[in-house]
Amino acid sequence: MASPVLPSSGVLSPLGTDSVRPAPGFWGDRIALNREVTIAHCQEWMERTGWIGNFRRLGATPAQRGAHPRQGREFSDSEIYKLLEAMAWADHPNLPELAATVAAAQEEDGYLNTRWYDDRYSDFEWGHELYCYGHLIQAGVARLRAHGEDELTKVVLRAADHICRRFMNTQETCGHPVVEMALVELYRATGTERYLEMARRFVERRGLPALGDITFGRAYFQDDLPVRRARVFRGHAVRAVYLASGAVDVAVETGDSELLSAIEAQWERTVARRIHLTGGLGSRHSDESFGEDFELPPDRAYSETCAGIGSIMLSHRLLLATGNVRYADLAERTMFNVLATALALDGRSFFYASPLHVRVPASPLEGVNQVAEGGLRSPWFTVSCCPSNIARTYASLAAYLATSDASGVQIHHHAPAEIRHGGLALRVETGYPWSGAVTVRVLEAGSGRISLRVPPWASGARLSYGGAVRPVSPGYAVAEGEWRAGDEIRLDLPMTPRWTYPDPRADAVRGCAAVERGPLVYCAESVGDEPPLSLIRAGTATPVEHHLLDGVVELDVQASLLHPPADAWPYSSPQAPQSAAPPGQPAPAPAGEPLRLVPYHRWGNRGPATMRVWLPTTA
Amino acid sequence: MASPVLPSSGVLSPLGTDSVRPAPGFWGDRIALNREVTIAHCQEWMERTGWIGNFRRLGATPAQRGAHPRQGREFSDSEIYKLLEAMAWADHPNLPELAATVAAAQEEDGYLNTRWYDDRYSDFEWGHELYCYGHLIQAGVARLRAHGEDELTKVVLRAADHICRRFMNTQETCGHPVVEMALVELYRATGTERYLEMARRFVERRGLPALGDITFGRAYFQDDLPVRRARVFRGHAVRAVYLASGAVDVAVETGDSELLSAIEAQWERTVARRIHLTGGLGSRHSDESFGEDFELPPDRAYSETCAGIGSIMLSHRLLLATGNVRYADLAERTMFNVLATALALDGRSFFYASPLHVRVPASPLEGVNQVAEGGLRSPWFTVSCCPSNIARTYASLAAYLATSDASGVQIHHHAPAEIRHGGLALRVETGYPWSGAVTVRVLEAGSGRISLRVPPWASGARLSYGGAVRPVSPGYAVAEGEWRAGDEIRLDLPMTPRWTYPDPRADAVRGCAAVERGPLVYCAESVGDEPPLSLIRAGTATPVEHHLLDGVVELDVQASLLHPPADAWPYSSPQAPQSAAPPGQPAPAPAGEPLRLVPYHRWGNRGPATMRVWLPTTA
Repeated sequence: MASPVLPSSGVLSPLGTDSVRPAPGFWGDRIALNREVTIAHCQEWMERTGWIGNFRRLGATPAQRGAHPRQGREFSDSEIYKLLEAMAWADHPNLPELAATVAAAQEEDGYLNTRWYDDRYSDFEWGHELYCYGHLIQAGVARLRAHGEDELTKVVLRAADHICRRFMNTQETCGHPVVEMALVELYRATGTERYLEMARRFVERRGLPALGDITFGRAYFQDDLPVRRARVFRGHAVRAVYLASGAVDVAVETGDSELLSAIEAQWERTVARRIHLTGGLGSRHSDESFGEDFELPPDRAYSETCAGIGSIMLSHRLLLATGNVRYADLAERTMFNVLATALALDGRSFFYASPLHVRVPASPLEGVNQVAEGGLRSPWFTVSCCPSNIARTYASLAAYLATSDASGVQIHHHAPAEIRHGGLALRVETGYPWSGAVTVRVLEAGSGRISLRVPPWASGARLSYGGAVRPVSPGYAVAEGEWRAGDEIRLDLPMTPRWTYPDPRADAVRGCAAVERGPLVYCAESVGDEPPLSLIRAGTATPVEHHLLDGVVELDVQASLLHPPADAWPYSSPQAPQSAAPPGQPAPAPAGEPLRLVPYHRWGNRGPATMRVWLPTTA
Repeated sequence: MASPVLPSSGVLSPLGTDSVRPAPGFWGDRIALNREVTIAHCQEWMERTGWIGNFRRLGATPAQRGAHPRQGREFSDSEIYKLLEAMAWADHPNLPELAATVAAAQEEDGYLNTRWYDDRYSDFEWGHELYCYGHLIQAGVARLRAHGEDELTKVVLRAADHICRRFMNTQETCGHPVVEMALVELYRATGTERYLEMARRFVERRGLPALGDITFGRAYFQDDLPVRRARVFRGHAVRAVYLASGAVDVAVETGDSELLSAIEAQWERTVARRIHLTGGLGSRHSDESFGEDFELPPDRAYSETCAGIGSIMLSHRLLLATGNVRYADLAERTMFNVLATALALDGRSFFYASPLHVRVPASPLEGVNQVAEGGLRSPWFTVSCCPSNIARTYASLAAYLATSDASGVQIHHHAPAEIRHGGLALRVETGYPWSGAVTVRVLEAGSGRISLRVPPWASGARLSYGGAVRPVSPGYAVAEGEWRAGDEIRLDLPMTPRWTYPDPRADAVRGCAAVERGPLVYCAESVGDEPPLSLIRAGTATPVEHHLLDGVVELDVQASLLHPPADAWPYSSPQAPQSAAPPGQPAPAPAGEPLRLVPYHRWGNRGPATMRVWLPTTA
């Protein structure tokens, strides 16, 4: 089964990329774009920056090495591994040569790192050696499942065995989690139990503590508390969700229901208080961390692409383990509003951070972007974790769409695709997320339940099959029967645009509302900041739909423009007018004008612009 | 004249610490506390951390040096220099010994730096060598003016001459400005014109550009544009206001009215769009920068103490140059709400950042604070620029209170003090900022105008002298006459608490108002977060005053507590209820209860607490 996650137990079992074949449509188009454009784009940049060259350099003489310094940050090896994972899922022809380059750099005992080779394991807090192995192992698992053993998988097993020898009986771990989930998956792929035991120990020793003190504080890398004792995700967002994913994997394979429940509770609390409307995670640029409960600034939302991807990985694992639809709901929100947002429509540039408000149009940059701001997508970054993470996620995305259990098939994410399970073959046809109609046609006969997820916003949904129509509630709409070729099941999700309001404790968006339609968050985008979005006040009547020729739906709301207040001091006390700094009391313009909203994931494709998801309302 | 700023021309001339003698009162008490406690506290920590030891270490053998590595960050020498400046203004007995320690580390040619001595000027972007000299020179100027020539002033002249020799004909400058204003002041103190010329060149070569590229971008250290071409302060806030101060000094001494006007325009635009209600500067923790226009988050307000001090220094210079009362207004706001806030009531701990909203009570720390958050004051920091900056500012604060011109004396900041100018001697008596009554008694006869600043919030103020009372407007209230001993001038400033509202473009505080009384910003402080400030909604009736026994005024407003909303997902769409994530529509509690507000500068002295300046209103 070609899936990045294959638990040996759990409520639901994934259907892999060999069982789910996406067809053209929202996700199918992006999966194809990734395979045809983005993977090669990433490889080209990894050559250009010398990050692949770092592996070749290890075969050179010390003198040659001295003349050609290593390039990139201490964790750049991991980008090559994520690219290899993408290539493995996509069965990309460039894989063997790139894998051979990596293999040639591995040492006799399995050690492999282009940064630390002569100074092994000297910096667990920042060295990222186990982090790099984690991504290497995930690439190896992908190769094993999508292709079978080859040179890359041998490299991976040697590295994994090296890790077990070196770390099984220490109290050490890595500042950046990922090796935990990677080792569990390698156990699942090979049956070698020491990989699971190693992963379990890495999870359990965290927070004892296992790492040294750092300026950001120990919560930054989740070493402040044992995993099972924490109440909420905290610190660096990517690290937090990667660690939680590994903990779920360990819990599932060892039957540790206490650990699983702990992660579920942390997920619940985080999702209630520390998440942006888009599903994005992280509010602080300084340490790429969550921040406190309800610290959700739209302008400085960090919402790193990798954190969104990690959140999808975590929610998918929790969905498989529990069958709880809320995990699929959040995964969908994050897929449409973080993952889809991060990749430009041409497949060649990326958002690192995805804020929900941009006040000043970004200045176009040439070359590598050094800063993870979110005003324009960039072709590459100094810390370029996101592009290769996007590439491996799209390459395996088909494996996230549907699952099975003893009773049948569950379709969690609605996208045109062919799905096979047991003898049953289905074709999903839909214009989702633009249209709410999802049709499942039976191609090859079979039996069992066919469950279709009904998202939480879709009250009033209807399910039609066998000549009957019935209302279905959010959760799963279940069609049961003996299916014959040609049978058709149709789910209708109401797609009326809706205004969404924040929790009153979300201080940064008080007095604002956002528009959603189906799974999509919308935003006002103002190319060159005309009209000025800082002065917009929106009415909250139901937005008017505009269906464009390519299927995309844009929305109009009514908005008025405030007069800009006087400009001397931005605070005023009306009862005590200030002579030196007159208060600027804005008056709304007399009548509202239509303000066009675009799907958030499409913003920033028309050049430098301002943008806001949360619109101040006239109320 | 003992003043840190002594321009040779300008509308107003400062009265130094030898002319203005503070008496007990708001500022006098803090000036005494600083002299008696804070200066020694800083010296003790600089010994404990080894930062003073770095100077002794340079006299050791290379082998001894190897055994005792240098301590602290690359700029720690500057802390010793700021402490020396504080000691110089305070005529502190510890100065000669500490100055001798510094002097012994100076090299033959005047070079002096404990970090870079064997690798001089190899990193202009981050090395801080000229920055350290800047603070050394400011210490020397203080010593020259408050005491006269001694060993310290000789060290300073040797260093300044070294700088002129090394940098007069290059295009180099330092990543962190301060040497510019220091050199102008040394020119003012000595008459040596090359110091002014060197400062002028440092100012002019910035932005050509003069420095290398860095991750934060060139605006971080104001090397993106020539000083006179910029429109607004940007980048690292401390660097921005230090550079602007130096540019004003150069403009004044060279008669460069274009440069002076450029800084005035930058100040205007910054103050209209990039300033917190407290006068604090800086909104981003990641690079300690301003952020964009109207990016003013109360919770993540950086508002570094040093940026506030730099802003006071800049506004004071602009006040002297132009006589425009707006500069004194902002200086007062910043003094009462940033400077006074930064120092604990016991004089031994400090805020580095001063946010306007704290959601979670801080955890008390032992020892050195590594992170510049603002939940509790700390005795010392890894980057400990603020404590010594506070010390030198209080030690010279008397020189900021009053000025003179040909017509007489101007009192900009109301504090008990004796002021002498010409033959005239005045005693200011006031309980300001708690009381709005300011009395000026003539101690020794003289003539000339006595001008008292009327702050912008004080409409309805009255001035009484010579048996007459008349209304005075914000600006300066002027009393003219031939003054005899015993004459009395009285200014009455109305101190009614007022609600203050933000510009509608200040997104992060939409729907909120703050309370001010006189020059003080108030805040709700909730020790242990009881009541929970996240759920407060305040009514905007005039707050009720409570006068405490020590003169402090606290205020009560009426507030209700929202019921906490349901907890699954922090966003809701009322027209389309979500079954999986029910919307939590808060209902206000039936009746308001009094909520106590305390002066912002006093918050955080009672242990870990939550705090908010901007209160969501019921409106």
